[in-house]
Amino acid sequence: MPLVRIDFRKGIHNDLGNKIGAIVYRSMIETINVPENDNFQIISEHEANGLIYDPNYLGIHRSNGIIIIQVTLNEGRTTDMKKAFYKMVSERLHQELGLSKEDIFINLVEVKKENWSFGHGVAQYAQ
Amino acid sequence: MPLVRIDFRKGIHNDLGNKIGAIVYRSMIETINVPENDNFQIISEHEANGLIYDPNYLGIHRSNGIIIIQVTLNEGRTTDMKKAFYKMVSERLHQELGLSKEDIFINLVEVKKENWSFGHGVAQYAQ
Amino acid sequence: MPLVRIDFRKGIHNDLGNKIGAIVYRSMIETINVPENDNFQIISEHEANGLIYDPNYLGIHRSNGIIIIQVTLNEGRTTDMKKAFYKMVSERLHQELGLSKEDIFINLVEVKKENWSFGHGVAQYAQ
Repeated sequence: MPLVRIDFRKGIHNDLGNKIGAIVYRSMIETINVPENDNFQIISEHEANGLIYDPNYLGIHRSNGIIIIQVTLNEGRTTDMKKAFYKMVSERLHQELGLSKEDIFINLVEVKKENWSFGHGVAQYAQ
Repeated sequence: MPLVRIDFRKGIHNDLGNKIGAIVYRSMIETINVPENDNFQIISEHEANGLIYDPNYLGIHRSNGIIIIQVTLNEGRTTDMKKAFYKMVSERLHQELGLSKEDIFINLVEVKKENWSFGHGVAQYAQ
Repeated sequence: MPLVRIDFRKGIHNDLGNKIGAIVYRSMIETINVPENDNFQIISEHEANGLIYDPNYLGIHRSNGIIIIQVTLNEGRTTDMKKAFYKMVSERLHQELGLSKEDIFINLVEVKKENWSFGHGVAQYAQ
């Protein structure tokens, strides 16, 4: 169900895209009740002029290594669950891949459960 | 009004992108009351490591031919209309282009009618 | 907070991507209460077959110079604020960069304030 879009600049995280994606996926399972194997991601790299960020907004010091993670998922997660998700993604990207926690930008877009078809033209989550 | 993003892997659906998009467009008109000529789409192809999918989630057997269709549209369609849309897209992509119904992944993101400007800096759908 | 995706065709707006983005950013500050320095954008150029548009929907005459601007932001802006945003973006892109107002397509996707992490794995806008 979650559809994850991950965007970062070219030449910064060479070959790390799939590892970043895998950490996002596992963190969703552990914090926001995403089912096992529900893993769909689009990972895009951009030239410097294709990914714009502010290096200091809210006092956070971002670098060209910024990673923008936008997750479309079903509504219903609590704020505490969302906080746990942000924290786990950030910590694991730092601990396992050495990325800066200040470079991890996350946004969630929530939709209804009947807004998905996983194949066969069927709305698998609709009642 | 719908803004359609279609993503798939490179080298799989050569030159089929626009035909896939046209089927999505016509299916929206016939099932979810999208107006004639309201056709805006972004179609992107990705290297293998840029589009991640699970090959068996929910018992559906996906291949590298997976097509991810994300549609942003106005809220208000019923679940039955959404189901009809998924079914028609899937059947037509299979019948007209020979694609596997198991490879068709669809997600809807709903917004308010005042959330669109189609040109001239005006919110054409706002009251 | 706003995450801005800007898409247009290659070879049309050479080197204008960042200027277009800067106008969208400044217009958000002046019309829809976006904080200063809250600037995060993904700008993508597409081959002709990767960006489909209707050249006449709603009587607006679009060209290959069409610019699709999709903004994910917090809910709560009034319709009047949204209208002011569309108008300012369109007018400035026309006046400052010579773009056609008929080529400016804008869509807003609204989310809750706890749906963002700007770094450090923290939900900075959650209460």
